[in-house]
Amino acid sequence: MQPTSDLPSPRPENLAKYLPHLSIDCCVFGFHENQLKILLIQWQSITPWSLPGGFILPNESVDAAAKRILQERTSLKDIYLEQFKIFGEVNRTNSPENRKYILDSDLPASSKDWLLQRTISLGYYALIDFSKAMPTTAPLIQDCRWWDIQEVPLLIHDHPQILQQARRALQLHLLNKPLGYNLLPEKFTMTELRRLYEIILDKSIDRRNFEKKMLKLGILDRLEEVKTNVSYKAPLLYKFNQAKYQELLEADFGLGF
Amino acid sequence: MQPTSDLPSPRPENLAKYLPHLSIDCCVFGFHENQLKILLIQWQSITPWSLPGGFILPNESVDAAAKRILQERTSLKDIYLEQFKIFGEVNRTNSPENRKYILDSDLPASSKDWLLQRTISLGYYALIDFSKAMPTTAPLIQDCRWWDIQEVPLLIHDHPQILQQARRALQLHLLNKPLGYNLLPEKFTMTELRRLYEIILDKSIDRRNFEKKMLKLGILDRLEEVKTNVSYKAPLLYKFNQAKYQELLEADFGLGF
Repeated sequence: MQPTSDLPSPRPENLAKYLPHLSIDCCVFGFHENQLKILLIQWQSITPWSLPGGFILPNESVDAAAKRILQERTSLKDIYLEQFKIFGEVNRTNSPENRKYILDSDLPASSKDWLLQRTISLGYYALIDFSKAMPTTAPLIQDCRWWDIQEVPLLIHDHPQILQQARRALQLHLLNKPLGYNLLPEKFTMTELRRLYEIILDKSIDRRNFEKKMLKLGILDRLEEVKTNVSYKAPLLYKFNQAKYQELLEADFGLGF
Repeated sequence: MQPTSDLPSPRPENLAKYLPHLSIDCCVFGFHENQLKILLIQWQSITPWSLPGGFILPNESVDAAAKRILQERTSLKDIYLEQFKIFGEVNRTNSPENRKYILDSDLPASSKDWLLQRTISLGYYALIDFSKAMPTTAPLIQDCRWWDIQEVPLLIHDHPQILQQARRALQLHLLNKPLGYNLLPEKFTMTELRRLYEIILDKSIDRRNFEKKMLKLGILDRLEEVKTNVSYKAPLLYKFNQAKYQELLEADFGLGF
């Protein structure tokens, strides 16, 4: 049984208080057992899954709305969020197929009208520590769970395109600034870090070149301890050097794998 | 005397037909005499200058709206446009200072109300051939002209921040894909190309390394002719190889200067 959020998620009775024609859709990425995961929700009585999303209050900045929406779905505050693209085609939520999903659902009529109006979506991606997130449903959301990025189910509207664009943005950003801090546990091995890069960039990376390049960036501190509970030669553990990491994050350019 | 557009720019009598709470702001970059230029407009009776912008019609995609707005200001179709960020702070158009600029203007009351409502701006940047653009005013726009990027005048609202973020996005993109085609004339010298990179990246680049790297990308065709009307040794002329350029543009990653 998943927890249900008591934060003010969209409810049939209060949709009209949000800014019209606008939504936020979030691609929430996590990393677990060397796999990239994505958090998806299922609206009540609608078969295709959706990216977690919501709407913007008149007195709330767009970034604050995105944070609120993700806090509702994960119980996490201080999530690493990047607004990466807008999705503004006229009929993106209104194709015959999508109309049918929504009209056939048992959502209240007012919710259906709201969901079928022209909506411009502001796309965010989030990087979160898989182990700390608690996927959370809400009155209109019947399910909320992690999916392996290779096994994403049928998605509604243009959400496949939003996810694809988010992955592309994530790749571009990872090539230009360090992002691993948000996805890895505090202590990690060089192999875990490399695997993260490989899975996001969708290519294999030479082990020695990667190690050399990463160490040269100066963002890693090698710890005195080694990884335990492994059957092979215990690998070295690293953590990010916060000061150097932050510096590189702000510089924004040119890791270049 | 600048030409005035006869396209349907925002007019006092028709603002209500646009989607509320949303605007598009465009940072239009051009390159001329080795300088980066930005196209700015001045709304009627408002002192600070503005990024060219406008609103979205209910039956128009966001990208189409951006194209229409820029066609109105430059007479150009097929402009290279990138949506790079949204600006969604609650009071971004409603600071006491900005309220005063708008309330003191001689704009019609309905326009003032429209301009002072909460507005989320969708930020685009455009790269255009300076020599082909024709800066164009409109009924509510008293001036529209190029400014040297080093000499930008006082800007309204959060437009300084939008411009700064656009430059940052342009830098990141230039480091990862070729963009020069949109800013340079058909034939150009290696020095002109390098100067473009230097001015966008805001740093000097070693001449020989740049040439080597650029030629290695395979996107340049060396022409049989040389640049004429220069007093020194005539430099070689290049043009972009469209097929290779397009391939690299779609690959999207890793020029890395």
